[in-house]
Amino acid sequence: MANENSTTNYKWVGKRTRRPDGVDKVTGRARYGDDMTVPGMLYGKILRSPHAHAKILSIDTSKANALKGVKAVLTSAEIPDHPLSQPPYAPIINDMHDISRNVMARDKVLYDGHAVAAVAATSERIARQALKLIDVEYEVLPHVLDPLEAAGRAAPILHEDQFTYSADGLSDKPSNLFRSITGQRGDLDQGFAEADIIVEREFTSEPVHQGYIEPLACIATASEDNCVELWTTTQGHFVIRALCAKLLNMDLAKVRVTASEIGGGFGGKNTVYGEPVAIRLSQMTGRPVRMVMTRTEVFRASGPTVGSRTRIKIGARKDGTITAADAETWYQAGAFKGAPVGRAAETFFSSYTIKNARAVVHDVCVNRPKVAAYRAPGAPMAAYAAEGAINELASRLAMDPVDIRIKNAVREGDESLMGTKYGQIGLLDVLEKVKSHDHYSAPLGNNQGRGFALGYWMHGGGLSSVSAHLLDDGTVTVATGNPDIGGSRSSMRVMAAEELGVDIELIKPIVADTGSMGYSHLTAGSRTTFATGMAVIFAVREIIEKLRALAAKKWRLTIDQVTWEAGQAVASSSSRGGIQSLSLKELAAMATKMGGAIAGHSEINAGGAGAAFSAQLVDVEIDPETGFVTPLRYTVVQDVGRAISPDYVEGQMQGGAVQGIGWALNEAYIYDDQARLQNTGFLDYRMPVASDVPMIDTVLVEVPNPNHPYGVRGVGEPCLVSAPAAVANAVENAIGQTMSSLPLSPPKILKRIDEAQAAGG
Amino acid sequence: MANENSTTNYKWVGKRTRRPDGVDKVTGRARYGDDMTVPGMLYGKILRSPHAHAKILSIDTSKANALKGVKAVLTSAEIPDHPLSQPPYAPIINDMHDISRNVMARDKVLYDGHAVAAVAATSERIARQALKLIDVEYEVLPHVLDPLEAAGRAAPILHEDQFTYSADGLSDKPSNLFRSITGQRGDLDQGFAEADIIVEREFTSEPVHQGYIEPLACIATASEDNCVELWTTTQGHFVIRALCAKLLNMDLAKVRVTASEIGGGFGGKNTVYGEPVAIRLSQMTGRPVRMVMTRTEVFRASGPTVGSRTRIKIGARKDGTITAADAETWYQAGAFKGAPVGRAAETFFSSYTIKNARAVVHDVCVNRPKVAAYRAPGAPMAAYAAEGAINELASRLAMDPVDIRIKNAVREGDESLMGTKYGQIGLLDVLEKVKSHDHYSAPLGNNQGRGFALGYWMHGGGLSSVSAHLLDDGTVTVATGNPDIGGSRSSMRVMAAEELGVDIELIKPIVADTGSMGYSHLTAGSRTTFATGMAVIFAVREIIEKLRALAAKKWRLTIDQVTWEAGQAVASSSSRGGIQSLSLKELAAMATKMGGAIAGHSEINAGGAGAAFSAQLVDVEIDPETGFVTPLRYTVVQDVGRAISPDYVEGQMQGGAVQGIGWALNEAYIYDDQARLQNTGFLDYRMPVASDVPMIDTVLVEVPNPNHPYGVRGVGEPCLVSAPAAVANAVENAIGQTMSSLPLSPPKILKRIDEAQAAGG
Repeated sequence: MANENSTTNYKWVGKRTRRPDGVDKVTGRARYGDDMTVPGMLYGKILRSPHAHAKILSIDTSKANALKGVKAVLTSAEIPDHPLSQPPYAPIINDMHDISRNVMARDKVLYDGHAVAAVAATSERIARQALKLIDVEYEVLPHVLDPLEAAGRAAPILHEDQFTYSADGLSDKPSNLFRSITGQRGDLDQGFAEADIIVEREFTSEPVHQGYIEPLACIATASEDNCVELWTTTQGHFVIRALCAKLLNMDLAKVRVTASEIGGGFGGKNTVYGEPVAIRLSQMTGRPVRMVMTRTEVFRASGPTVGSRTRIKIGARKDGTITAADAETWYQAGAFKGAPVGRAAETFFSSYTIKNARAVVHDVCVNRPKVAAYRAPGAPMAAYAAEGAINELASRLAMDPVDIRIKNAVREGDESLMGTKYGQIGLLDVLEKVKSHDHYSAPLGNNQGRGFALGYWMHGGGLSSVSAHLLDDGTVTVATGNPDIGGSRSSMRVMAAEELGVDIELIKPIVADTGSMGYSHLTAGSRTTFATGMAVIFAVREIIEKLRALAAKKWRLTIDQVTWEAGQAVASSSSRGGIQSLSLKELAAMATKMGGAIAGHSEINAGGAGAAFSAQLVDVEIDPETGFVTPLRYTVVQDVGRAISPDYVEGQMQGGAVQGIGWALNEAYIYDDQARLQNTGFLDYRMPVASDVPMIDTVLVEVPNPNHPYGVRGVGEPCLVSAPAAVANAVENAIGQTMSSLPLSPPKILKRIDEAQAAGG
Repeated sequence: MANENSTTNYKWVGKRTRRPDGVDKVTGRARYGDDMTVPGMLYGKILRSPHAHAKILSIDTSKANALKGVKAVLTSAEIPDHPLSQPPYAPIINDMHDISRNVMARDKVLYDGHAVAAVAATSERIARQALKLIDVEYEVLPHVLDPLEAAGRAAPILHEDQFTYSADGLSDKPSNLFRSITGQRGDLDQGFAEADIIVEREFTSEPVHQGYIEPLACIATASEDNCVELWTTTQGHFVIRALCAKLLNMDLAKVRVTASEIGGGFGGKNTVYGEPVAIRLSQMTGRPVRMVMTRTEVFRASGPTVGSRTRIKIGARKDGTITAADAETWYQAGAFKGAPVGRAAETFFSSYTIKNARAVVHDVCVNRPKVAAYRAPGAPMAAYAAEGAINELASRLAMDPVDIRIKNAVREGDESLMGTKYGQIGLLDVLEKVKSHDHYSAPLGNNQGRGFALGYWMHGGGLSSVSAHLLDDGTVTVATGNPDIGGSRSSMRVMAAEELGVDIELIKPIVADTGSMGYSHLTAGSRTTFATGMAVIFAVREIIEKLRALAAKKWRLTIDQVTWEAGQAVASSSSRGGIQSLSLKELAAMATKMGGAIAGHSEINAGGAGAAFSAQLVDVEIDPETGFVTPLRYTVVQDVGRAISPDYVEGQMQGGAVQGIGWALNEAYIYDDQARLQNTGFLDYRMPVASDVPMIDTVLVEVPNPNHPYGVRGVGEPCLVSAPAAVANAVENAIGQTMSSLPLSPPKILKRIDEAQAAGG
């Protein structure tokens, strides 16, 4: 929990302050998606496909419609259709054609749990009963779950209108392979020719769910004049507004979205599921419609992250210089295209200055729920393969795993494989910190192993809007358009208080709805403290400018003669014959009498979010009888740029590590032979709980991002990127065998141990 | 319904457009104060005094507290006390000492219905039951209801700590008379000496209630960190925030208030009643608390307007020149000081250039609910006396009642009695319009009479804030901090569309909560279309500036080379070789890619709201058998400056006239001998309903206010100022007798007819 390199001349930045919303969250007062009711509301429920792949021959809703208490029954006929997007494709695909079909299946169902119809009724019981009265006639089709298999010529085709897109154009035949992204530089053949040693491995990872505590929930209230109010749990209500409006052909201004408190998102609440359906049901019935998913529905029908099949080959000289690296990976996008392939290609080798490298990432549709973002989307499974291969390389070169990374580490001015140029980065600082940490040299016992891995993530910036208002009593509201997921209320408050030079208790952070705030992109991509934080700083600086002008007016000085120091306007002694000051509180009381209310606004498109690196050390112990893995010790060392609120930063780093433990050891979707999901609850889908993990130690390295006034980089994502690789490496180290297929569950480990023993290993 | 003088070069201003919220309001979808629930909420109820004046000897809440389902019982001990405000006093008194005692009686109850305790329980039934279990021991004191009597030395004193304040300081003894405001000019003795004729009259008016359809309602949700969210029906959520925060010693920023849809206010929803109690109950219980008043509670405990006792004397020469005017009036403030005395003094003679004039207005406490504002607060009862006296003057001079007003009418550059200097005003235009209207010369039948009166009101300006946001699809949200009472959504939309030069359907007006918007004063004083409208115009102009800059950037021109015309940025032909344009929609789609989201903000303190005059003609018929009055025809001629939305302007004028009919003919509080209110429902408190009134004709005179870009003056208040006087004048005219005591109810009229007949009249 060291907080090193921290400058101490800040009043609030970097301090451990009380959470502005902590008590409400732990006492159950905070209002999450499900904690809202509206008088007269109906209960929406969705009928879901029991088949992984089938044609919908007919839907008969007449019996459901006739049930007393049922106010509307909806099928895809009630959801506007949209044309398929055409090449050239954007890096991130928001294809309304796909989203409309994911929200409500049109001609085919594409995964177990795919929505096929919905009802709105006066009670949840009646709604559930009505679902049973909807008759859907299916023609079941063959399914495919594995991306490699799905990309093959023999696979059942999910979309007859989807062709493989490449520089040469579209493929002749429909294909589940939508497109492939390649990052490349140098000459691979030459690179491998220069190598003294070559490691070739295959790795697989499974789709895993974000596992947010709070299921998806919303209430839609449509009005007669085609306006809608929507209350929903989301990571970005402006994005939900955009998706709903576009999907339902509505004006953006007529959709007003309020973000509830959010019980976890991790990327999984960046898109729409029930929202457009609730809106349509509300429009059809003239009443508010509430739609809350069960946990089973969340697992069956909301997006997990991708699973992957990766082939990787790395060559190095004896001194550890990596001369060539090549990776090819198949990402399963789920039922609709859009796996985070660009981010994957970016991740593979971007921590290293490898002269000859290539990463090819395939975006493949399979009969699973459409993937969603999950904390550094696309990266952890790429890092799992790349870091696993490099760890084996180090092992075979008998090199220290940190040293081989130091030898090949990128520095300022270097570029990632996809061409991202690094500014001031803290990679070497992080690696040095690992080497000097006592965890790195601590002794290990029997059946114990230590793992190490590195993770890289390029953070997001983009559009953020802030309105800050100084009130008569000197308190300040700071309204943003970003739901607070990982502590943005705290970090916004800290930055506003730091700029103003006043106590943080005077600052009230507010999450405003879409009706009263400028566009603010998702709370995602580790962008919020960086981008929205910058908008907070600019908005508050506008307030300070106005207060300086106000003091100058009062003192009959020019604004240049007034400075802002420690929460007050100060007239320099030369201009006033002695220092004179007016505090924020005094100025606030005068403000509205001398003009309008004092506000500062900022609408920005923030660029220059920094890259960050997270290195992780983990010790595990294996029970040789059962294969059960106990994580013993865990240390995350990460360049956080500047920790605005260290408690939250540490929480992010710990959370990333814990989720990585889950990815590495336990989490996977289990399907039966009909591709029906079997583990749709937390009892069967095993995520780590507090008793499964050790205290996660954190070391905050602070190499400031020069593009942010306080040096902020994101922190939430790099810590997951390296985690599965580090844990897997520890398991390999403990059993002395390579293992290449996540999750490393006890039966698999036991099998590997047995195989090795049988082989005399 | 003529809309004369209207310029036709506007695209939207002055047009009759579809209401943006009309359908929702008539279909019951709009969410009023009572249309909100929160999971886990409790029901708050208030115990009210059965006595008009009594000491509270003790309150025993133990039995109520013990009732199952009761979560909290509150008395004044739970409401912070505040010191009495000290001289010099502001024109409008917001004395926290008084407000805290009005919200919850401290040592004494001062009127029938005064709050003495409150409970929060799990159901409304239990809450009501709990109220019955609270034992309050009272010592009943003598009461006083009449302001003249209350101002006398023998009256029971309401506040032992209240003394009469005057230029000489405070009175020796406590008094119900708080202060007197005097407007004066010239030499009264000389003025009356110059008069050929002098009229002396006494007039009385009764307190009347705003009679909004929607009773007061709120839900308070307190959080652990001393923050509060409040949902309430109000004319100004920023004012409610200020009052609650001040009263409960909270930071302004920590109180977030959302205004519900409002079912009428008319001034009656400018202050707090249940809100601070609901907040305290929520703080005590840790749960949301809902507080909804019954109609009986609204009548007994929320503020009506003042009643008055007025003596007036006016002298004129034979040619109709008024040489002197003197008025003295006692206004009953209710249980706490603060009758609108300044406005009353302003009203009396301010339509006329009377050289020698005086108006003295007394602010007197009586054992009635504390008065609240009611549409042109303090003015209609003053105008009733002044206009009544002038009508008698005209009658005795055998002069046309309009001519006598034209002769004495104020013009631009003149001053009101309280020193308000008139800018460009439309008084003479209004009077000329009356004379030329066919109503003015239409024949009357038996038992019919025609009344005429003039009303004046100086409109408010003040603090308003607006944030307008241009969205990607070219639609625009316009967020204000003003609840929509009389159509501000429509007028804001019209002004924004007019500035932008686009269809009004692209504009979505939003009422934002206090957390995301700068301070916005009440929707009251006819200020909103003027002040908030001006902020809308400025905010939208900022958007246009940004769009011109964006187009200039795109075209590589300077911003000066780009103009904004009819919804698009246009490059002049000289600078581009042919005209080139980019529409709002095109620019909107580019905007976020070239910078931040496009917004315009305005926080202003608007001055220069115009004065306006409303003249009213009304014909009535009296049933000589019953005294029943039937209004037959009604015409309102008013200078509206500029009618942004004529439908709403006419609605305001019609509504003012209808309320005036109620004041004049029916409305009054009926007390028993213990000063307990007897008519606490709409069956007994008789307000006009649709079948009671004729269609109210409106003539809109448009003399623009030069201080507003479109010439807006307020319209909602002058139309009530003249109404009671006009109706009373019609009754007098019909029966050929003077009557001086509102309401002119059938028994009173019958009595006056009988008296006159008995006297051989």
